[in-house]
Amino acid sequence: MLSHNQIKLLSALSVKKYRQKYRKFIVEGDKITAELLSQSQWQVENLFATERWTKEYAALAAAFNGILSVVSESDLSKVSSLSTPPEVLAVVTLPENDAAPAVSGTDVYFFLDGIRDPGNMGTILRVADWFGLPAVFCSPDCVDVYSPKVIQSSMGAFLRVATREIAFRELLATAPGIPVLGAVMDGRNLFEGRWPDHGLLVIGNEGQGISPDVQSLLTHRLTIPKGQGGGAESLNASVAAGIIAAFLKNAH
Amino acid sequence: MLSHNQIKLLSALSVKKYRQKYRKFIVEGDKITAELLSQSQWQVENLFATERWTKEYAALAAAFNGILSVVSESDLSKVSSLSTPPEVLAVVTLPENDAAPAVSGTDVYFFLDGIRDPGNMGTILRVADWFGLPAVFCSPDCVDVYSPKVIQSSMGAFLRVATREIAFRELLATAPGIPVLGAVMDGRNLFEGRWPDHGLLVIGNEGQGISPDVQSLLTHRLTIPKGQGGGAESLNASVAAGIIAAFLKNAH
Repeated sequence: MLSHNQIKLLSALSVKKYRQKYRKFIVEGDKITAELLSQSQWQVENLFATERWTKEYAALAAAFNGILSVVSESDLSKVSSLSTPPEVLAVVTLPENDAAPAVSGTDVYFFLDGIRDPGNMGTILRVADWFGLPAVFCSPDCVDVYSPKVIQSSMGAFLRVATREIAFRELLATAPGIPVLGAVMDGRNLFEGRWPDHGLLVIGNEGQGISPDVQSLLTHRLTIPKGQGGGAESLNASVAAGIIAAFLKNAH
Repeated sequence: MLSHNQIKLLSALSVKKYRQKYRKFIVEGDKITAELLSQSQWQVENLFATERWTKEYAALAAAFNGILSVVSESDLSKVSSLSTPPEVLAVVTLPENDAAPAVSGTDVYFFLDGIRDPGNMGTILRVADWFGLPAVFCSPDCVDVYSPKVIQSSMGAFLRVATREIAFRELLATAPGIPVLGAVMDGRNLFEGRWPDHGLLVIGNEGQGISPDVQSLLTHRLTIPKGQGGGAESLNASVAAGIIAAFLKNAH
């Protein structure tokens, strides 16, 4: 059974402030937890699972026996962020923020400039994972990558794509002269321009787009052209990220 | 002030069963309601707005004076689906299901095969709107287009893109011989194949992909290629829809 204090701590970890304070975050659900446990770079501190999970994942249960507590489904439902309570929940040490690889001159990276919606953030991590981008950089005003909704909507992509919170100018200073691409209203047609095969691809905020300071640093301004009769004011940020990444990775 | 019965009816309209029964749905918020009111094809039955809205949108308030009721913000918060209560809420007659245009031999259309997530449905409508697709067809097991979450996440795209609920074989019977494109695991590389410039583009369910029966009817099987080192099992359905639509509309 979970103690009152455990419930309090686990519930608090749904809030960024407490994730930062305790340097922990939560991963829930069979599939994503199994993937987490199979990767050596994560420091799993506690594992809470139902009896049923320990039978279905007997090898993992044995391997992590020292930190495994068997609890009831009803206990898990008290601390879960999922609408359907999970069979397993892991408490993981929050990685250091500088764990992302250095920007190289041969890869494409996302820089997320104020992405606020957790669903968008998770979906963008899936895009980065699908196209093999080595890292996603996030401005300090982005939603936290380790929030439960981002973890869930990333479908495990956060396990495979390195992320780092960093201000844009600070990032740029680590790779001076690197191409900086971003979608703007009056840019060059994505499908007609010639684009570099590496660089920072900036994805702007859902409502405001790319912030003025970052816009001033773009070296390549592109536009996803509207179709004839197209009426939408904008595309969803994660859809735009997917279209641009797909094209840049496949146009060469 | 909203009566008890009005509150009951308006709240009921968040559920598909009652939207169907009463043949009404709800549109909320300044921007999307203003766009709704400016389009003559929608039958707006009632308009509930705050004093403030009637001043800010005085021309609309005058034009719709006959069906306008001024209510308090607290009344609106009782019936709103939004996290921040709106200043205006419209009750609209549910359109007939056969209002979508017939499939032509020159356009691209989405067929959504079991899209369940309202956010995905709304985002796909935005994609269709952006690229100027004339209509989106939805299998009967899709989430209802007129559910409040779809309306909101579509950012008004449902006002501009016709939708119709229809079984795939029934739709196909209206346009025999039309190309049917769909993303599958073992299809041809989207960026390397030659694809028709018109047809039905099938977007599969979030977990299961395209259903077996519809898969058997595909004439063009395509794949969005994973990048080197890419790990994700799949792309989000609306991201995949965006990438394929962008490429089909711009590759010719």
